[in-house]
Amino acid sequence: MVKEEPAKDYSDPPPAPLVDGAEFGMWSVYRACIAEFVATLLFLYITIGTVIGSSEAASCGGVGLLGIAWAFGGMIFILVYCTAGISGGHINPAVTFGLFLARKVTLPRTIAYIVAQCLGAICGVALIKSFQSSFYVQSGDGANMVASPYSKKTGLAAEIIGTFVLVYTVFSATDPKRNARDSHVPVLAPLPIGFAVFMVHLATIPITGTGINPARSFGAAVIYGHKKSWDDHWIFWVGPFIGAALAAAYHQYVLRAGAFKAFGSSRSQINF
Amino acid sequence: MVKEEPAKDYSDPPPAPLVDGAEFGMWSVYRACIAEFVATLLFLYITIGTVIGSSEAASCGGVGLLGIAWAFGGMIFILVYCTAGISGGHINPAVTFGLFLARKVTLPRTIAYIVAQCLGAICGVALIKSFQSSFYVQSGDGANMVASPYSKKTGLAAEIIGTFVLVYTVFSATDPKRNARDSHVPVLAPLPIGFAVFMVHLATIPITGTGINPARSFGAAVIYGHKKSWDDHWIFWVGPFIGAALAAAYHQYVLRAGAFKAFGSSRSQINF
Amino acid sequence: MVKEEPAKDYSDPPPAPLVDGAEFGMWSVYRACIAEFVATLLFLYITIGTVIGSSEAASCGGVGLLGIAWAFGGMIFILVYCTAGISGGHINPAVTFGLFLARKVTLPRTIAYIVAQCLGAICGVALIKSFQSSFYVQSGDGANMVASPYSKKTGLAAEIIGTFVLVYTVFSATDPKRNARDSHVPVLAPLPIGFAVFMVHLATIPITGTGINPARSFGAAVIYGHKKSWDDHWIFWVGPFIGAALAAAYHQYVLRAGAFKAFGSSRSQINF
Amino acid sequence: MVKEEPAKDYSDPPPAPLVDGAEFGMWSVYRACIAEFVATLLFLYITIGTVIGSSEAASCGGVGLLGIAWAFGGMIFILVYCTAGISGGHINPAVTFGLFLARKVTLPRTIAYIVAQCLGAICGVALIKSFQSSFYVQSGDGANMVASPYSKKTGLAAEIIGTFVLVYTVFSATDPKRNARDSHVPVLAPLPIGFAVFMVHLATIPITGTGINPARSFGAAVIYGHKKSWDDHWIFWVGPFIGAALAAAYHQYVLRAGAFKAFGSSRSQINF
Repeated sequence: MVKEEPAKDYSDPPPAPLVDGAEFGMWSVYRACIAEFVATLLFLYITIGTVIGSSEAASCGGVGLLGIAWAFGGMIFILVYCTAGISGGHINPAVTFGLFLARKVTLPRTIAYIVAQCLGAICGVALIKSFQSSFYVQSGDGANMVASPYSKKTGLAAEIIGTFVLVYTVFSATDPKRNARDSHVPVLAPLPIGFAVFMVHLATIPITGTGINPARSFGAAVIYGHKKSWDDHWIFWVGPFIGAALAAAYHQYVLRAGAFKAFGSSRSQINF
Repeated sequence: MVKEEPAKDYSDPPPAPLVDGAEFGMWSVYRACIAEFVATLLFLYITIGTVIGSSEAASCGGVGLLGIAWAFGGMIFILVYCTAGISGGHINPAVTFGLFLARKVTLPRTIAYIVAQCLGAICGVALIKSFQSSFYVQSGDGANMVASPYSKKTGLAAEIIGTFVLVYTVFSATDPKRNARDSHVPVLAPLPIGFAVFMVHLATIPITGTGINPARSFGAAVIYGHKKSWDDHWIFWVGPFIGAALAAAYHQYVLRAGAFKAFGSSRSQINF
Repeated sequence: MVKEEPAKDYSDPPPAPLVDGAEFGMWSVYRACIAEFVATLLFLYITIGTVIGSSEAASCGGVGLLGIAWAFGGMIFILVYCTAGISGGHINPAVTFGLFLARKVTLPRTIAYIVAQCLGAICGVALIKSFQSSFYVQSGDGANMVASPYSKKTGLAAEIIGTFVLVYTVFSATDPKRNARDSHVPVLAPLPIGFAVFMVHLATIPITGTGINPARSFGAAVIYGHKKSWDDHWIFWVGPFIGAALAAAYHQYVLRAGAFKAFGSSRSQINF
Repeated sequence: MVKEEPAKDYSDPPPAPLVDGAEFGMWSVYRACIAEFVATLLFLYITIGTVIGSSEAASCGGVGLLGIAWAFGGMIFILVYCTAGISGGHINPAVTFGLFLARKVTLPRTIAYIVAQCLGAICGVALIKSFQSSFYVQSGDGANMVASPYSKKTGLAAEIIGTFVLVYTVFSATDPKRNARDSHVPVLAPLPIGFAVFMVHLATIPITGTGINPARSFGAAVIYGHKKSWDDHWIFWVGPFIGAALAAAYHQYVLRAGAFKAFGSSRSQINF
């Protein structure tokens, strides 16, 4: 096996340490957690609001499944665009977990982000529920559950593959190799990431309502609080984390060709 | 608290003075007001035309709520793209107000823009109404009102959060820090701004018809002229202005980390 | 009146001569006409095909008005993207006419382009009609006509304003001033141009079917051939040409501030 | 005939040899085949899943034809974006064949890619079928067939022209001449390619279900396995290959003006 590129025209940043003591004193880390909290809050507020507003207007009056899929994809596009320079623009525990596995964020930052995302998601759903309590119960759509003819195994597989599509796109968009060749203009990165979310929603809303984001599923389940949504809830953590791990492994071991080099790469952010 | 960046690789422009006497003699200021007037006119003409055309064709024949949301978001995308180099591409008093609070535009320019935007909005709605007076009365949709099961408090909250999403995206897209890192290619900026408008419409059309733009609400109310639309009208000025102020504060005090530095930044335009 | 920019950081190309004798011998001019012919053919083939396929599937089964609007806007996006480097990517006699008025193309090239566009449009509609003659008659939608409750004056006004939106976007996207500031990356230009077409279709399909492109209206009228479409046909030439002239005047005299400087600018292409 | 450009500001890479012995030992070629396999698998999984989920929810409940068209176009956008740097981002035997004719990929790589794409397509459709066997039979939509009132000749013509639109866009987006003028920022290339797929689906889903990708048609036919889909199957290989050949010829002989120069150009990848 011969490597194709004779010389590297890009440099991989060193891997993030597992724990970086200096990080604790940095304002930028706290700021990043605030940004993740606010972004996840806005994400759930808009998307669950769209789901509720759509189910309210029966038949063709609402924005439909296509509008719901746009809401999820479009919000990820604008929120990744807005927060990429502050926190890396994760807004999703599965993305944070995948980047942690690839040694692009430290363990404390990973935990802090996931906590911030889950709190933000709960607040976002609570906020939109406070607007329209009467509608909310009838449209349990906001919460992720495996829909009736599908098995839990199918729901889990759908979450794994859906998250794979998303995290694979995140890794492709933030690859330092790509950035070097692009002469530092990865300006389009949030758009394919948002489209990946849009696409997965088009395909799997009928199966699970589409999680691929444990914070989104957790926030909706906490506020909805019915037994069915808690019974299936493990699927929306296990599935996305497996999908993210597979995408990280595919990118680092297959596409970046070699464990040594790949694990030598570290970036905590989608830099713009 | 330790700052993460050891040295700044960008320069914040100085804050805009509250009043800049030299501005009055400049053709470019008058031109900017004309551009805001024309852009807001076209914005209302196309979007209210879409709302009317859609309500006319009942059920599935029209473009639907999704098409209406696209009309608002897509027009903001193209109009910000077209007028950014002339006026900064505000097309919305809430955006102008937010940028004024961040000291990016002077007070006289803020007032001039808002007057131009409101006049443009009135002319745009009047123009489309002159086309189709028979339909217009039955579809009061063009005017923003709090829909029946929602309280005024909910409508106000929806306007505040919706405008927060929009103005937060505007601040993120026009951050000089981002521009420096992008090697001066903020070419994508109008797209996420347009998408922010699209997203907020998907979520809140069922609640208020979605204002998040006082000129748009004012123009539609003036031409529609029914009591209900005037009773709720304050919501569509107070809500957006509060939302814009919160977004400005969030960006300047939290994300840009520090009142001193943030207030040292001044830009009157989204430069392309 | 004081000019804002102390020194120009861009250069306006000289105005195109009315007739440039050297052009006649150039292969690139013939190639540009071929590219305009093929692009307009593909534009009509896909868009009229979408209109017919949509009307066939009654109610909600087809792509709907929103899908039709996407077909027109999306095709302009990809065809401008593909042909910009060859012919300037006009694909529309109104755009060619507007750029001629701004002295960006010569008179012979203007005429040649318009002929090529009209021939391409006829062939494109003929091609799609040859596929599905049985459906075509019932869905006269492909042809532009003023819909029943609207007056011809309204139809004309809708065409004027719609074309103004399009040609204003074209001028904004291809302004040499913008290009200089963008460090030569006007890579997004075809996207707002395509969105402008999408937006105008959302608003005015219920009024006229949306022309804003005389070649598109002419091709559909030639193949459809019914009296009603010919009676209204002048609207779809006069309206777009007036709209294009207004947009050219607005851009050159108001936004570019001054007849002398503006008329000193000449570009025959959207260069990428 | 006089060439317009006095001097070339770009360099055409040399043509790919028909067979390049060195390629066989390269890890990057195997990696490229894996990437094509995975991308085509994900493409079919998401798109056929969307088709099935949509037909299940009758009338307005599903994403509709517009949602299906978005699924095909959007997936091509993100997968071309993600795999362009690894394999060139073909994900379609017709694209690979067109680039082979233009001497941008070698013959062994062409064959390897097409095999990988077909295997990926079979696995992707098998995966989604394993989720929902009960629905799948009733919605034979996943498989490409000529719909009832259309003749096979019409289906073939629709596939030829549709593939022409796609491959013409691919050639335009990856032209080294364009890249040189863009100062190496062809960052938008996957977006028009995805839109080309979206557009063709809007127009021709009612005719053939839209193939324009033999691997997609083959994978769906293998898993569906009904006689009708096999009877028409040749159309979805012959049509796309003719369309790709016409697009390659149009680009190389007409747009790039001259067989000698055009055939001197070789690129195996859409470089980003």
